[in-house]
Amino acid sequence: MCRIAAYAGPAIPLENIIVRPRHSLLTQSQHANEAKLAVNGDGFGISWYGEGQAPGLYRDVLPAWADDNLTHLCRMVRSQLFIAHIRASTVGETSRANCHPFAYDRWSFCHNGQIPHFGQIKRRMMAALPDDLFDARRGTADSELIFLSMQAHGLDRDVAGAIATTLNDIGPEGASGPVKLTCVFSDGDTLYAFRHASSGNSPTLYLSGVLDNGGRAVASEPLCGVTERWTALPCNVLCRISADGLQTESISLPVAA
Amino acid sequence: MCRIAAYAGPAIPLENIIVRPRHSLLTQSQHANEAKLAVNGDGFGISWYGEGQAPGLYRDVLPAWADDNLTHLCRMVRSQLFIAHIRASTVGETSRANCHPFAYDRWSFCHNGQIPHFGQIKRRMMAALPDDLFDARRGTADSELIFLSMQAHGLDRDVAGAIATTLNDIGPEGASGPVKLTCVFSDGDTLYAFRHASSGNSPTLYLSGVLDNGGRAVASEPLCGVTERWTALPCNVLCRISADGLQTESISLPVAA
Amino acid sequence: MCRIAAYAGPAIPLENIIVRPRHSLLTQSQHANEAKLAVNGDGFGISWYGEGQAPGLYRDVLPAWADDNLTHLCRMVRSQLFIAHIRASTVGETSRANCHPFAYDRWSFCHNGQIPHFGQIKRRMMAALPDDLFDARRGTADSELIFLSMQAHGLDRDVAGAIATTLNDIGPEGASGPVKLTCVFSDGDTLYAFRHASSGNSPTLYLSGVLDNGGRAVASEPLCGVTERWTALPCNVLCRISADGLQTESISLPVAA
Amino acid sequence: MCRIAAYAGPAIPLENIIVRPRHSLLTQSQHANEAKLAVNGDGFGISWYGEGQAPGLYRDVLPAWADDNLTHLCRMVRSQLFIAHIRASTVGETSRANCHPFAYDRWSFCHNGQIPHFGQIKRRMMAALPDDLFDARRGTADSELIFLSMQAHGLDRDVAGAIATTLNDIGPEGASGPVKLTCVFSDGDTLYAFRHASSGNSPTLYLSGVLDNGGRAVASEPLCGVTERWTALPCNVLCRISADGLQTESISLPVAA
Repeated sequence: MCRIAAYAGPAIPLENIIVRPRHSLLTQSQHANEAKLAVNGDGFGISWYGEGQAPGLYRDVLPAWADDNLTHLCRMVRSQLFIAHIRASTVGETSRANCHPFAYDRWSFCHNGQIPHFGQIKRRMMAALPDDLFDARRGTADSELIFLSMQAHGLDRDVAGAIATTLNDIGPEGASGPVKLTCVFSDGDTLYAFRHASSGNSPTLYLSGVLDNGGRAVASEPLCGVTERWTALPCNVLCRISADGLQTESISLPVAA
Repeated sequence: MCRIAAYAGPAIPLENIIVRPRHSLLTQSQHANEAKLAVNGDGFGISWYGEGQAPGLYRDVLPAWADDNLTHLCRMVRSQLFIAHIRASTVGETSRANCHPFAYDRWSFCHNGQIPHFGQIKRRMMAALPDDLFDARRGTADSELIFLSMQAHGLDRDVAGAIATTLNDIGPEGASGPVKLTCVFSDGDTLYAFRHASSGNSPTLYLSGVLDNGGRAVASEPLCGVTERWTALPCNVLCRISADGLQTESISLPVAA
Repeated sequence: MCRIAAYAGPAIPLENIIVRPRHSLLTQSQHANEAKLAVNGDGFGISWYGEGQAPGLYRDVLPAWADDNLTHLCRMVRSQLFIAHIRASTVGETSRANCHPFAYDRWSFCHNGQIPHFGQIKRRMMAALPDDLFDARRGTADSELIFLSMQAHGLDRDVAGAIATTLNDIGPEGASGPVKLTCVFSDGDTLYAFRHASSGNSPTLYLSGVLDNGGRAVASEPLCGVTERWTALPCNVLCRISADGLQTESISLPVAA
Repeated sequence: MCRIAAYAGPAIPLENIIVRPRHSLLTQSQHANEAKLAVNGDGFGISWYGEGQAPGLYRDVLPAWADDNLTHLCRMVRSQLFIAHIRASTVGETSRANCHPFAYDRWSFCHNGQIPHFGQIKRRMMAALPDDLFDARRGTADSELIFLSMQAHGLDRDVAGAIATTLNDIGPEGASGPVKLTCVFSDGDTLYAFRHASSGNSPTLYLSGVLDNGGRAVASEPLCGVTERWTALPCNVLCRISADGLQTESISLPVAA
């Protein structure tokens, strides 16, 4: 389980979302309320847009709260669109290459959830990648592979279609449990958020109202500590936040077997 | 607040104390029961004795549960006397040099507690160190300074006296709160444990009964998850574990002002 | 021995100085020409000015060439004044707190050189610091102590005077060899560069001509690989680069004993 | 290019090979003589045998000379068979999972060399792995994939055959340059060393004479700084060092196309 926060709107210092709110992502790294694990100390990452088309990436394996570089960065860097992620793992080694967000071309992507039968479909999904996406894999995380599969299925041309096809590839849930996919991603122009669970609930995601500066935020838990102005994102609805405002679109997914 | 586990007796793999018990130190790093913070993810360290007189030191800034090297080390290394420490911090950067245990000559030392008025006495305590101990300081942690002060006060010749004189240097508790000092340390022959609070309680420390192999363990929380064979160490009693068995000695401390 | 590069002028991406020049600081991290050690792989740091008065700081213990975060940061962040430093050490552990630049208030400072008799004067210099500067020390590096001494001697009011007084504190060279101090620092408005050696040469520092965009750079080795437009900075001359252009001032230093 | 040192014989402290010789592996990390790059600062690793069948692994991304933990470990740990590796990379991020040696079951393996056409054969080699070896991959390094292919080709039953079949899989050199494979590996009982180049030279590997204690060492460069008692290992000869002494065996390899 992990925690995510993201923003799109007029450029603001990253710290306005990641550090300063009462229930900021940094606070959630030690005191998450709506996750199985209250502590998310197994690495973190930020992607942000500004200079050029490709996002900046800053990822490290330390707990977010123990990284002075992160505090400085969040204070100094302004961006009109950024995504931050903190990770909770219960076992095993963390590497930067396995920290979210993952980046490819102008896209960046982070994920919270699980696909319990991933072991059974991983080789098939890797084999289905075209060479350039196969070679673009930097780590060993399942989430990176889901992202690259979405690229292979045309994320650049049809976001809803790429998600549906990738979920189709993943297939129906197996005996090991439901597929849960809560993801936040962007091409630098639009911020996308999406939740899906083959059954039961997928990890929470909330959408802020229009902020004072005209922007909007998305977060695993409301950042301010009160929930009035935050709306829980329903499953199977693709949410787009851009200069054109907020748009939502239901995605028709393959019927569970 | 931190968690400590240590052992003295016939040589055993470090994992028998640090990894394998049901409520091992590694488990306590994510699920401490008797600490303010349930998670101790801000670095860790081990000192162990074997080859030569000086202890081996292994310290890193990662959470203990995220370090594969630690798991390997604990499986492969046997020792007749070792001390392990996991750290919980709430703010600020971690460096290896500030991870416990600290080592000097053949001694190693780790500490759990706080001296709220340390800011007022730090310069005086540093100024009082002889040159070689002043130069031996590797980090900026208060605990390292307490350890070096104990060295300056003759830890090598009179352990109880060095503790009493150091506590005298630290002085009575100030307005900012009570002095709490729970420490575990060794010269390679004897394992020492000591708790002190100027008022109230200092962090817990438990002493195991004689283990099946004839050794004994000391830990912030009983390692097995049951408390029957573990005894809470009282305050102001110095506990020595060595080949001669277990000895305890009350330390007369300066009366609080 | 270390390598330094800094810039003041119209805001540019950090990479224009640190990454892109033919003989950039990143290139110098593996192929320095004018240093005893060709490789500077023991940590690095950047301070940059922009948002607010205090500089941003990004420091890590990895070799600069092995840090993807650094590449991203240098591509995405623009600044009108920044200082970068790569470090070469031959022995001992690196920590972030000992990586240059050091920051205090709105100042940041980096240093290349050595004071061979530092062991003899360190305690005296630390004891002379006022409490707030004593407490501001984060690491154990000599260079940080020199910087804090300069603060204590009024860097904020009289840069040349603070340097002279600090060199006076350091005293004449001892039997162990000459004092060498090449430093680059800033308060966010002005970029300062200074070289001094009690005898012989201190590490090189070059000043660029006016760049195409109107700015200027300072570097241990000319960044472009040709030396025509770069001028070697003489010793004992304080160089100031600001919106008012370039100014130089000879500093009268205590006569060597 | 990297540097390797390994040992088999009566148990000795790791430092006797890695730290103490005049031209030790640690010295080679800063002053390699027979490599393109004199500095090998991009991570390191050690595998050692002792407790149980599986090797201990200690790997980190720091330069070897900057890791105090390594120094302690090498002083404290004794082993009858161990392999150490230091890595030189010129670009890109280092992760522990990509540091040599790699371990699988009771085997550990490290490699120095290059397969310039690896991009063309990588997918095929991965697809050919059985599921358990496919899942055993922890990083993204080509060397790890070569090792897992050797496992798939029966390293456990026929070492020479597994090497020959793997080289057959790799195929003849392409237009991008010759295949170079210098590797050192072990199952805990026997230390193996092997060099191969499809044309030209592969990275050096030297075999020590019988050491004073009856053991033998293998190293990229003679450890003592003199070459009299060290023999350069010829190509295509598999060298086995075990309790039965030294054995060599020529491997018949597929004829280059």
